[in-house]
Amino acid sequence: MANSPSGDSMLDRLVRILSSFDLNNQSLSVSSLARRADIPKATMYRLLDELVSHDLLARDGSGQVRLGLRLWELANRSAATQDLRTAALPFMEDINQLLGQNTQLSVLHQDEVLIIERLSRPGSVVNQANVAGRMPVHRTSMGMALLAFSRPETIHGFLERHHELMTDAHPELRAEMAEIRRNGFASFDGFIDPETTGAAAPILDEAGYQVAVISVVVPRDSGTLQSAALALRTAARGIARALRLDNI
Amino acid sequence: MANSPSGDSMLDRLVRILSSFDLNNQSLSVSSLARRADIPKATMYRLLDELVSHDLLARDGSGQVRLGLRLWELANRSAATQDLRTAALPFMEDINQLLGQNTQLSVLHQDEVLIIERLSRPGSVVNQANVAGRMPVHRTSMGMALLAFSRPETIHGFLERHHELMTDAHPELRAEMAEIRRNGFASFDGFIDPETTGAAAPILDEAGYQVAVISVVVPRDSGTLQSAALALRTAARGIARALRLDNI
Repeated sequence: MANSPSGDSMLDRLVRILSSFDLNNQSLSVSSLARRADIPKATMYRLLDELVSHDLLARDGSGQVRLGLRLWELANRSAATQDLRTAALPFMEDINQLLGQNTQLSVLHQDEVLIIERLSRPGSVVNQANVAGRMPVHRTSMGMALLAFSRPETIHGFLERHHELMTDAHPELRAEMAEIRRNGFASFDGFIDPETTGAAAPILDEAGYQVAVISVVVPRDSGTLQSAALALRTAARGIARALRLDNI
Repeated sequence: MANSPSGDSMLDRLVRILSSFDLNNQSLSVSSLARRADIPKATMYRLLDELVSHDLLARDGSGQVRLGLRLWELANRSAATQDLRTAALPFMEDINQLLGQNTQLSVLHQDEVLIIERLSRPGSVVNQANVAGRMPVHRTSMGMALLAFSRPETIHGFLERHHELMTDAHPELRAEMAEIRRNGFASFDGFIDPETTGAAAPILDEAGYQVAVISVVVPRDSGTLQSAALALRTAARGIARALRLDNI
């Protein structure tokens, strides 16, 4: 693709522009967008016109810029996540209602936990997982469940890249992973928030490897962890079955 | 942005590439992607490498190409639709369970109905609305509810652009729109599917204009339309309230 004088391609710039927006920066001024995307302001104005004309970005009434609805549409209408969401949503609703806590659906992506869907519940304990947000593998039950049920080569590669981080947080890593596999779920107290415990059960393919994970965050020491884990494992099996039925 | 010899910009091409995927074409061969996007095959291979390196597109095991998870992540983590979804999902679950039918959340976008969210129900009647899919305004209760509760200038512009289509489908358009506004909901028999009736209630801002619409499709002549409409209007008010609380 055509490169700018600074050597980065149009696509590099586009990705930096889109990456400048996040949950806490849903709209930005042109100046701050240019700064965050590391693009000269005059260039930014020119790019903006073209991006807005395609509705990949949109200007709101006050001159701020945000993502365009067309971008959302293109990214979602054939997303790989859509089949997973469709299969998982009814089971997530069940968990959400029966346990009365926020329920998440996540995948392992580029060595991090990527949240695909979240059902909230008024009065739930604090939970920092947002849709399309990322969380670290080593500090979440979601991440540990995803890793423990990954293919051997995925686990091997991950541990090579993040050896220190993992062994610092999990001195008995091998024993811990074996226990997660034996139990069929992972749970951790207060890694992200000291008052809560996360529990996560993997959704498995027919070879027994994870394709995603379903999880809840419950108040710590609530005594509900074991029953929550069993409910999650039940839901995870239901989702796996729904995914396979869908593929027939 | 830099233009190719044929005069279309990188961004034009990117939008054509992303637009080539849809629900029925979640993965494509490089040849068919090049054909659908109207891009020379050699150019397509070059673009593909760069798009895959940014994870905007991804190659699967069999050499087919699909949208990358990074695209989904960037488009969703700060999407304008996210606040609306979060506010609406609990009410959509209520409708979904109480009426036992598929429930949709949609907005008016570029003169069409864009489906933001859908909750399915096993055993629901046939329903052609998919997440991030589009449907025509004049043939859906969603579209008619959205239009009737739009700002006067939006209605005026829409009717100018689609006069013939609208008056063909709705000979008594003015009376019909007035009735939708009076009733607080729109319903139509069998426009898309002869066996079903759609009902849709607008979610209104404080000035009384729509920001979205919640809808169900029920079996035609089931006698449940009036109660479904009342349930939808109740849910729509709850969503509007949740949206306003969120904005405080």
